[in-house]
Amino acid sequence: MTRFRLTVEYDGRPFMGWQRQAHGPSVQQAIEDAAKAITGEAAAVHAAGRTDAGVHALAMTAHIDIEKPIAPFRLMAALNARLRPQPVAILACEEVAGDWHARFSCLGRRYLYRIANRRAPLALEAGRAWQIARPIDADAMQAAAQALVGLHDFTTFRSAHCQSASPIKTLDRLDVRREGDMVLIEAAARSFLHHQVRSMVGCLALVGQGQWRAADLAAALEARNRAALGFNAPPDGLFFVEALYPDI
Amino acid sequence: MTRFRLTVEYDGRPFMGWQRQAHGPSVQQAIEDAAKAITGEAAAVHAAGRTDAGVHALAMTAHIDIEKPIAPFRLMAALNARLRPQPVAILACEEVAGDWHARFSCLGRRYLYRIANRRAPLALEAGRAWQIARPIDADAMQAAAQALVGLHDFTTFRSAHCQSASPIKTLDRLDVRREGDMVLIEAAARSFLHHQVRSMVGCLALVGQGQWRAADLAAALEARNRAALGFNAPPDGLFFVEALYPDI
Repeated sequence: MTRFRLTVEYDGRPFMGWQRQAHGPSVQQAIEDAAKAITGEAAAVHAAGRTDAGVHALAMTAHIDIEKPIAPFRLMAALNARLRPQPVAILACEEVAGDWHARFSCLGRRYLYRIANRRAPLALEAGRAWQIARPIDADAMQAAAQALVGLHDFTTFRSAHCQSASPIKTLDRLDVRREGDMVLIEAAARSFLHHQVRSMVGCLALVGQGQWRAADLAAALEARNRAALGFNAPPDGLFFVEALYPDI
Repeated sequence: MTRFRLTVEYDGRPFMGWQRQAHGPSVQQAIEDAAKAITGEAAAVHAAGRTDAGVHALAMTAHIDIEKPIAPFRLMAALNARLRPQPVAILACEEVAGDWHARFSCLGRRYLYRIANRRAPLALEAGRAWQIARPIDADAMQAAAQALVGLHDFTTFRSAHCQSASPIKTLDRLDVRREGDMVLIEAAARSFLHHQVRSMVGCLALVGQGQWRAADLAAALEARNRAALGFNAPPDGLFFVEALYPDI
């Protein structure tokens, strides 16, 4: 048996999310079906993060155990050939130790959220950013965001379906910057609650448009109450950027 | 009658190209149909450049004449509402003089071609770049590209269906640079021949992969013969960037 670490890029739009489910396609199933067609084995794929419907990944880390001998390069090429024409691509594939785990060995996760701040609807970026027409003050968002950094009870920013054992997390970084029409939000933590990034972005967008002040965002955090959530940003603009591990 | 200058962004994939045609959808028809629904008038839209099937535009300039009075802001909003959910967006709309013409007043056109230099198929960028797996030397491409800059007979880089009166054009700029996995080619000229950019990119890609030397590219230009063309790059990676006009 060989455990392979996969780096996976995907466009989340055609899928119900990463996780295999009965009622629609998933990224996990796409890769598992491709692997089964290649190896004949029904191997499960485990990811660093199970993204929701419509959420994209630049580089999701996952692992899969294969019994029959196969070279990593060959597995990667075969998976990519089988995955076409779905928007799922294996960027890298390497052997790892049997006790390395994509989810449990993960030291940190990073997300990017893209807001397209313009009046016109999206054409080239449709489905890959959240379009907001009203002018956005990215500097005000950056300043307000710092109140969320650190060790906090993020109940306000946690979906009702969150499976995490605790609402207390450490948010290592939450930065906002403008690049032309795009307002980019980067979030980094060891792990996130379900919908945490989208919830924080939704509230930051209210600050950026002048509807909330920084103090309102801080108060929402303090409330530790889902009802205090201003707004949950749509999945379109969310990208899983990367997962970090100890040097192998 | 008011002439409106439109700035249009579009994803070329669902269309047979800019130009209206009998056998498939076009960007021109999408905009004309939207305008007709709004104004009741059968007005034609004229563009700075008539892109081919699959070619994208970041900002195509076009004009349309409307008889009934309508404010530019209102026309833009109404067109965008009607164009949904097609990937065509009006980024700007302003009144211009009746003798201003999107095509004939145009002083210059700029294109961008994106090559994704990686082994893995495209997922997030599918249809918006040309994926080349073999390593590409962007510096070699940049050096070779300079032989094409200037006043030349570009017959080798001209499709058989080109409607231009002459194969002699001045290419103002052809620059190649690498940004991570992406190799970006920018071309600027007053005007281009049909397929000129894709033909130049196709040949530059042969230089980048070491199959042609810079001298081979120069020889292909000198041959002034379509048969000497190395390769015509796919439309996926081609973006019309902008059209330039005298200050109004």
